[in-house]
Amino acid sequence: MATQFGSKLFTETTIQLANTTETIVKGGRHLLPLLPQAFRGIQQIGVIGWSSQGPAQAQNLRDSLEGTGIKVVVGLRENSTSIPSAERAGFTHANGTLGEMMSVIRSSDLVLLLISDAAQAQHYKTIFSAIKPGATLGLSHGFLLGHLKSVGDLFPSSINVVAVCPKGMGPSVRRLYEQGKSINGAGINASVAVHQDVNGFATDIALAWAIGLGSPFCFYTTLEMEYRSDIFGERGILLGAIHGICESVYRWLLAKGVEPEDAFRRTAMSITKPISHTISKQGILAVYDGLSASAKAQFEMAYSAAYHPAFDILWEIYDEVSSGNEIKSVIMAENRFSRYPMGKIDGTPMWGVGESVRATNPSVEIDPITAGIYCATMMAQIDLLLEKGHAVSEVVNESVIESVDSLNPYMDYKGVAYMVDNCSNTARLGARKWAPRFDYMISQQTIPLLDELASPNSELIALFKSHRIHQAIAECATLRPSVDISVQPDLVK
Amino acid sequence: MATQFGSKLFTETTIQLANTTETIVKGGRHLLPLLPQAFRGIQQIGVIGWSSQGPAQAQNLRDSLEGTGIKVVVGLRENSTSIPSAERAGFTHANGTLGEMMSVIRSSDLVLLLISDAAQAQHYKTIFSAIKPGATLGLSHGFLLGHLKSVGDLFPSSINVVAVCPKGMGPSVRRLYEQGKSINGAGINASVAVHQDVNGFATDIALAWAIGLGSPFCFYTTLEMEYRSDIFGERGILLGAIHGICESVYRWLLAKGVEPEDAFRRTAMSITKPISHTISKQGILAVYDGLSASAKAQFEMAYSAAYHPAFDILWEIYDEVSSGNEIKSVIMAENRFSRYPMGKIDGTPMWGVGESVRATNPSVEIDPITAGIYCATMMAQIDLLLEKGHAVSEVVNESVIESVDSLNPYMDYKGVAYMVDNCSNTARLGARKWAPRFDYMISQQTIPLLDELASPNSELIALFKSHRIHQAIAECATLRPSVDISVQPDLVK
Repeated sequence: MATQFGSKLFTETTIQLANTTETIVKGGRHLLPLLPQAFRGIQQIGVIGWSSQGPAQAQNLRDSLEGTGIKVVVGLRENSTSIPSAERAGFTHANGTLGEMMSVIRSSDLVLLLISDAAQAQHYKTIFSAIKPGATLGLSHGFLLGHLKSVGDLFPSSINVVAVCPKGMGPSVRRLYEQGKSINGAGINASVAVHQDVNGFATDIALAWAIGLGSPFCFYTTLEMEYRSDIFGERGILLGAIHGICESVYRWLLAKGVEPEDAFRRTAMSITKPISHTISKQGILAVYDGLSASAKAQFEMAYSAAYHPAFDILWEIYDEVSSGNEIKSVIMAENRFSRYPMGKIDGTPMWGVGESVRATNPSVEIDPITAGIYCATMMAQIDLLLEKGHAVSEVVNESVIESVDSLNPYMDYKGVAYMVDNCSNTARLGARKWAPRFDYMISQQTIPLLDELASPNSELIALFKSHRIHQAIAECATLRPSVDISVQPDLVK
Repeated sequence: MATQFGSKLFTETTIQLANTTETIVKGGRHLLPLLPQAFRGIQQIGVIGWSSQGPAQAQNLRDSLEGTGIKVVVGLRENSTSIPSAERAGFTHANGTLGEMMSVIRSSDLVLLLISDAAQAQHYKTIFSAIKPGATLGLSHGFLLGHLKSVGDLFPSSINVVAVCPKGMGPSVRRLYEQGKSINGAGINASVAVHQDVNGFATDIALAWAIGLGSPFCFYTTLEMEYRSDIFGERGILLGAIHGICESVYRWLLAKGVEPEDAFRRTAMSITKPISHTISKQGILAVYDGLSASAKAQFEMAYSAAYHPAFDILWEIYDEVSSGNEIKSVIMAENRFSRYPMGKIDGTPMWGVGESVRATNPSVEIDPITAGIYCATMMAQIDLLLEKGHAVSEVVNESVIESVDSLNPYMDYKGVAYMVDNCSNTARLGARKWAPRFDYMISQQTIPLLDELASPNSELIALFKSHRIHQAIAECATLRPSVDISVQPDLVK
């Protein structure tokens, strides 16, 4: 796929990733003076919704545009329970920066639609008819395109449609922006897509929005590829797979007579601490390279036993997402909530054990079996996304960096529900749907091979060691924010 | 829904089921002389496919039509590996009763399309164009209608479309037919649907087909309701739910220190032996009524902890099936088989333990916890199907009778894979998809309540005891074949 923005205003940089060339745009506070020019014709930016991204994006843009005359206005439903929170952040009816959602949409030149996926699906027709012709609709996620495809509808042809998708939850987008005021390079990366450009300004508007949010690096994508990789990724290694891996391997260790506390350290904690830290700082291969010879043999056995079953189920997920099935499922699930709200996922003994283990703050080593299964699943996800034509940066972001830098720290801090249930309903539903599938896949296909001490698949291991993604991960690691996206308890709900 | 066939030839009988009235048609060998009249205009019946239903239906119809001049011809692909088997059954090129599939379709007046769901989805356009105008297409399953809806296509308007769906696997359809030659009332019941009637003969053709197969009782349905309840049911209590229930409760017992052999007896074996036998002979309520006072309290606790989570997930399955998602998933899965064939499901320790337990042929009692969870899931499935407007006979057949009489005996005989993998790919895929979901649902929502010895929900228990379905199950039990549909090892693959 082409990976050039073609911006008239912002400089594009070429990077080499795993034998491919991509162009990125570097952000930074020194570019903020360019925003008025990039936003030419835009007098008002409407930020619609106040859940995770809304507060972060509204405040970041307001700060970035201070003194330019471009007004950032928050739009909420008439009786929204978020109104007091928005007012505490300075968006008030009194100063004209808080209004009723539809009226803000009607009066804005750039409409950032940050309401939930389900609300977007439910209200998009009304919203489309309210947006001014020639205005720009901004999304932080491609879900709406997926929904439109599944119901056979289109965006209005009279507007720009762009997306800026930050690679972190809203609270991190806000916190790293604030750190970025004093620490050079702090900020959350974003992928940027231009889906419709009716006036030739859409690319600069999208990039200015990303830079205004504080993104140190903007990666190129399309709305279609974004929602595929995003909805797929959270069902895979980011949320669903890691949950299923932890449950199944923990249970297997227990059945072998391992004490619960030790089993927790060797599964969930091994992943969220040393494995994630190693991948984050040194890449996937370093997990293997750091093992002893005997541990390497165990890793190889587990990797070989897990890779193909993981690929199989990941492929199924990809098909479900790209066919529109998964998006239709999400909409149907939302319609059942009035009678059956989403259930708890951390009621199993494992997560109770985890709580007491965390309290002792133990030092944890990499468990080679857990590492083999986890890395095999991550590599299978990488291979599948590459096969499906996703840009290498997107593959690395959605399979590696978001996992070890953004999400696993949540699970490390307070368990699996804390990670999953701080995400969107689309992600929460997907994790609930696919974690059990990964669990059964490992229990039925992988663990029997571990029990019989099956020989590793030397071809698979050789492919792992020489994989072109390792260079790309190293390269992308240089494009990360300059501060860690750690979990701040006071910032998450 | 209306539940009248309106046959000109066969007598309809009215039955009362759970405050509703349905009409059924009783079969029997004494009606075979009516078949030529019902099949008026039909000189050749083409039976397409030779897997499970094909051999049974071709042989039964040939026997039933002996001496009438109506020819039963088997149609197979040019190089089908089933040809030798068909020839052993007397369908040969030499005697003109075996031919190439498309040529048999072109020359038949009634085409029984008994090839796999995936093959139907792949080849339906060619098949439709080959069927003679005015001929009748016969299905044994509504899958093709579901597929046509999901791709936005229709049956040709020039043909009759009917369905006869036997309530048992092919080998049972053949075996009970043969028993029916000497034992009055032996035979597999069927549901019968008339989807398109271009010449006014479709109803009699469909009923004659069912009676010719040996069905002692023909129940009314529509093609739409049939595929919904069928594809839903096998994902629910018939295959997916029972698997997930067994795995999760077995694991829970192990974690409490119960020996593996005992845990197997208290879960899988308790269901397939005493619980299934009791439900089959005396209904669901008898499972509860036969328990001691203390066991009743355990049943009530488990029932209360499982009913709503089970309803929730069953509702999700129903939505997935009726929206077309599930059928699209099956087609996509078939397209992945060339690279990843379907995996084993009995690789977990439980089914190895089961093998050694079965070898000892132990006597097993009803475990009240397992019974409570199993009956709650069965009742939730019944309630959901009633809520969705299915005929009561269909609800009882697809949620109760098929389970305890047709399928559970397979699991009893040789474990879960033997039951699941003797079904269609559509069923096998569905069981693999949903069993883990039931497992997690029970592990996350139900077992925590058992661990805290939660009080039963007296309202739910009262609804269970007074449920109108119990009368309907008793009534339907009088309409069962006069011999058991036991598993015959030599007849299954």
